[in-house]
Amino acid sequence: MVKKNGKRILRAGNMLNPSPVVMVSCGSSIDEYNIITIAWTGTLCSDPPMCFISVRPQRHSYEIIKRSGEFVINLVSRDLVTAADWCGVRSGQKYHKFLETGLTPTRATKVQAPLIHEAPVNLECKVKQIVPLGTHDMFIADIVAVHAAESLFNHKTDALELQRAHLVSYSHGHYYELGKILGKFGFSVEKK
Amino acid sequence: MVKKNGKRILRAGNMLNPSPVVMVSCGSSIDEYNIITIAWTGTLCSDPPMCFISVRPQRHSYEIIKRSGEFVINLVSRDLVTAADWCGVRSGQKYHKFLETGLTPTRATKVQAPLIHEAPVNLECKVKQIVPLGTHDMFIADIVAVHAAESLFNHKTDALELQRAHLVSYSHGHYYELGKILGKFGFSVEKK
Repeated sequence: MVKKNGKRILRAGNMLNPSPVVMVSCGSSIDEYNIITIAWTGTLCSDPPMCFISVRPQRHSYEIIKRSGEFVINLVSRDLVTAADWCGVRSGQKYHKFLETGLTPTRATKVQAPLIHEAPVNLECKVKQIVPLGTHDMFIADIVAVHAAESLFNHKTDALELQRAHLVSYSHGHYYELGKILGKFGFSVEKK
Repeated sequence: MVKKNGKRILRAGNMLNPSPVVMVSCGSSIDEYNIITIAWTGTLCSDPPMCFISVRPQRHSYEIIKRSGEFVINLVSRDLVTAADWCGVRSGQKYHKFLETGLTPTRATKVQAPLIHEAPVNLECKVKQIVPLGTHDMFIADIVAVHAAESLFNHKTDALELQRAHLVSYSHGHYYELGKILGKFGFSVEKK
């Protein structure tokens, strides 16, 4: 560890923070349904809308997603953070995650994997490519449908106001509530 | 738009929120140095440590990163959010972003691209593969070195306490401060 200009040089590692934290649901039948919590995820492309999740081959969900070629990304609100943490720590080999958490699986529209009803937003995804990288394989996917809770919409303007969802962010091993809004995209050049 | 079970079905789109927001610095010489702000980024693999950024080919930084095969990810603290927004809205074709923002370029250790000194954490990255997806190309990269501000370390325990960095999260067009800590990874199964 070398000090330079008030900075320490660390070993190369995963320090891209904060990250999202999502619950990924998968499985083609109700007995197979599983939930895995993932922070190694993100948007890859605006159009076509594409995202990825990275999963260790040892994880119970890995084979399910590989075989079915489908999964659903469920955004995590602060009410769901305990369930999300639990689904990230426990294995689907031992537990039926929907039964244990009391979360409700509902039908998606374009994939067989279930939505988590309690999540404020769900993204139905179809796997396009699997890229082995090392500890993790990256599943590159098309986003084929999106669901959002009715309560997130402003009933006057009909605008989606996602701050109503109280989404959770993940940083360096901790779950955070989103705090104060610091600005809107483009605020630095807005004329006052 | 169909309503179902208290949810609206939206057109498939990019609703994976929150996302990170980072300033990516690039360029091999001081006149070429540029900064582009990016939310389509994330960790791909724990070991080897890998990440990605997705960039539109029209962006000024695109050719610089493609040619040099290098970039630096600079995490955004709340003090840097105005600069980050500005670097996301303005083009390096018109502005020298370091000069205009007053941010300080400093030497990296394994890449020629500069670090942004004011950022609390910097990740030096080497491009491994470029994957064209549509509007965006994904740059898959190895993280080859990491720098963290001395002020982030607990001087008694020497632990990195990243909450000291006051990092910014991005969600649906808004920059957010990270708020209340809701739990630590594994909290749901901890014995009390």
